[in-house]
Amino acid sequence: MRDMLGRGRAVSVSEAQRLLLENITLTDHPDVSIQLVEAFGRVLAADIISPEDLPGFSRSTVDGYVVLAGDTFGASETAPAYLKVVNEILMGQEADFAIRKGETAKIATGGMLPDGADAVVMFEHSNILDDSMIEIQRAVAPGDNVVQRGEDVRAGEPIIGKGHRLRPHDVAVIAGVGFSEVKVFEQPAVSIISTGDEVVSEGMPVRPGQVRDMNSLLLAGLLMKDGGLPVRRGIIKDSFDALKSAVEMSLKESDMVLITGGSSVGIKDVTENVISDLGKVLFHSVSMKPGKPMLAGISDGKLVFGLPGHPRAVAVCYEVFIRPLVERLSGTSADEAAAMKGTVRARLSKSVSSSQGRQEVISVALEVRDDDLWAEPILGKSGLLSMLIRADGTITIPADKPGLREGQPVDVKLI
Amino acid sequence: MRDMLGRGRAVSVSEAQRLLLENITLTDHPDVSIQLVEAFGRVLAADIISPEDLPGFSRSTVDGYVVLAGDTFGASETAPAYLKVVNEILMGQEADFAIRKGETAKIATGGMLPDGADAVVMFEHSNILDDSMIEIQRAVAPGDNVVQRGEDVRAGEPIIGKGHRLRPHDVAVIAGVGFSEVKVFEQPAVSIISTGDEVVSEGMPVRPGQVRDMNSLLLAGLLMKDGGLPVRRGIIKDSFDALKSAVEMSLKESDMVLITGGSSVGIKDVTENVISDLGKVLFHSVSMKPGKPMLAGISDGKLVFGLPGHPRAVAVCYEVFIRPLVERLSGTSADEAAAMKGTVRARLSKSVSSSQGRQEVISVALEVRDDDLWAEPILGKSGLLSMLIRADGTITIPADKPGLREGQPVDVKLI
Repeated sequence: MRDMLGRGRAVSVSEAQRLLLENITLTDHPDVSIQLVEAFGRVLAADIISPEDLPGFSRSTVDGYVVLAGDTFGASETAPAYLKVVNEILMGQEADFAIRKGETAKIATGGMLPDGADAVVMFEHSNILDDSMIEIQRAVAPGDNVVQRGEDVRAGEPIIGKGHRLRPHDVAVIAGVGFSEVKVFEQPAVSIISTGDEVVSEGMPVRPGQVRDMNSLLLAGLLMKDGGLPVRRGIIKDSFDALKSAVEMSLKESDMVLITGGSSVGIKDVTENVISDLGKVLFHSVSMKPGKPMLAGISDGKLVFGLPGHPRAVAVCYEVFIRPLVERLSGTSADEAAAMKGTVRARLSKSVSSSQGRQEVISVALEVRDDDLWAEPILGKSGLLSMLIRADGTITIPADKPGLREGQPVDVKLI
Repeated sequence: MRDMLGRGRAVSVSEAQRLLLENITLTDHPDVSIQLVEAFGRVLAADIISPEDLPGFSRSTVDGYVVLAGDTFGASETAPAYLKVVNEILMGQEADFAIRKGETAKIATGGMLPDGADAVVMFEHSNILDDSMIEIQRAVAPGDNVVQRGEDVRAGEPIIGKGHRLRPHDVAVIAGVGFSEVKVFEQPAVSIISTGDEVVSEGMPVRPGQVRDMNSLLLAGLLMKDGGLPVRRGIIKDSFDALKSAVEMSLKESDMVLITGGSSVGIKDVTENVISDLGKVLFHSVSMKPGKPMLAGISDGKLVFGLPGHPRAVAVCYEVFIRPLVERLSGTSADEAAAMKGTVRARLSKSVSSSQGRQEVISVALEVRDDDLWAEPILGKSGLLSMLIRADGTITIPADKPGLREGQPVDVKLI
């Protein structure tokens, strides 16, 4: 029976992660130029260097009057400075005149400072005397209420680095410095092969003993969320030849291959044999619950995973092993802080125990009680779909811990 | 000068939110049936009722032998029970035989229990004697290592509620209960109109005094992330007639209208007049920084926003006012816990102060120091693009607080 449960010893989660990263080929990301409006969520393939100063002209940050700061020295409500209004600066127009000593011009927020002027007095600190004369009731220093040309971004300065995943804010700034296109990495293509003689496609009738394929949709959705391009290759029967030809084609056309149900009894041996035939098996199982029977191999620098059949186990294997690899294949240079963004801190609503020596991943539902966020462990038989639906995220009990205590703060990785 | 800065008093953030929610029409979400593979991130328009029991048959959760639990009572390593192996249950096949007293059959994880059998003994607790005889070394109770038919989901039971935004896990479960299509709400269409005589489209050359449109891309990206359908309507000149006809068409073809730069001096009056002409202005400005000059109105149950011109102010107005409305227009029934999912708890790396009486939103960069997550306030002149890029999220100082202290825990709303 031994071989039906997985050959050899189970590797630890960190050992498995090390083996995967050591063997995957991460070079040669192809890139492509796309329109900015298509670029949300894509990964920059080159630094964005501003071709120009931003702002391209010194401009006012308030509604008011441009001045030579020297003209306002000592001005107050009781002893205002008097200035002659010589012009008005309209938005979007070049200020093609100069301000001389004793002169001023009306300006709106964002308006361009004319030559000579070095500060702006807010309307609130001015008083109109007549059509051509105002009084200034407060002194300003040079630079007050002004953003200088190039103060935000200097021409030639890199503003967003290669490897950054573009958020709406970043795309807006890239438009702001003058680009309408951007060079991004191609998204990694990931093939999904479902296996199992008992598995039928979604929407098909099932006979007793059969189950519907859920894992290929689950993985497709997770991959899309992470910027990967899922390629669903259908359900392959439990035969060496059928699986080998599906994996061969997948390796040719994509960057990684996920075989769901590929670690189930029966198909596990077939999966291992196919991987051995096309490359080499890296590990046969992992000290993790759920997900223990997961196996992985490598062929020409591309990883092939034999994932469990239960959706919850598949989701956990994806989160622990595959998501970080999709990130790497995407060309991101994500940092530690970025990794913490997908998690929330909550308090554990009841104690959970775990077998030492293996990492355990527990589904939790989040709820707000007394203004605090609580994580409620969802315990039950492995493979129950209702657990999948109720879960908002997962918590991890490391291999060297016997469990987690009620009330203890936990980091919940969100689904 | 008073009218250039906004007529009347500024309303509080909560008063503005109340006015918006009171006036928007939230009924009549049209729905549409789509394939499951297209359904990730969409909002359910009807409860998902399982048409069948799940699992559809009682099945084993382990690799082992099906038994009548009664046959194993008292079994141990020293006094095993002996059973006759009468069959093997293959995956995907109906177990079309019955197990009688004294009999057993080999079964794989997920295999279908034959009639008569009420428990499974794991391989580890069995021993093969010969081709047709095994010994059982541990007793099992009825139901052990079995998921009963309907234990997960009962036919007729609602499993996911209307208003739920579909995650990969949910889509997988919907496939699991037999559907290949799902009924979702149409995504809310939101028109984006850029205004300002000084604003030019992305990728166009700028003359001195001009700036490029960044806000329409910023809003398009934010809306797409939140499940909205942005409709960018280009840059409209600062004239009543031009803006009125753009807003009229937008109201006809979408569920909400965002006018960027529509609260800037000059265009603000035009925006207010257009809204008054087509409906009514709800408020002229808000006690918030940035974003104070934001105005909003209503026409036939659809909201029209006059947003500031600075991207950072636009982003804050979006986050505080528009995102929750897009959620509501999407038909979601999001709860309190869901709202907390987009935030992380961090410690503030330096004190920040704020004017009491107005809500202040501060951009922060996240970094990991000593295993803790820290939020570093990004302070600087309003409208600097470099602030937009460095920000990972925002923190809010409520109107009744004078500021936040260094080291204090803060909730960072992620960008």
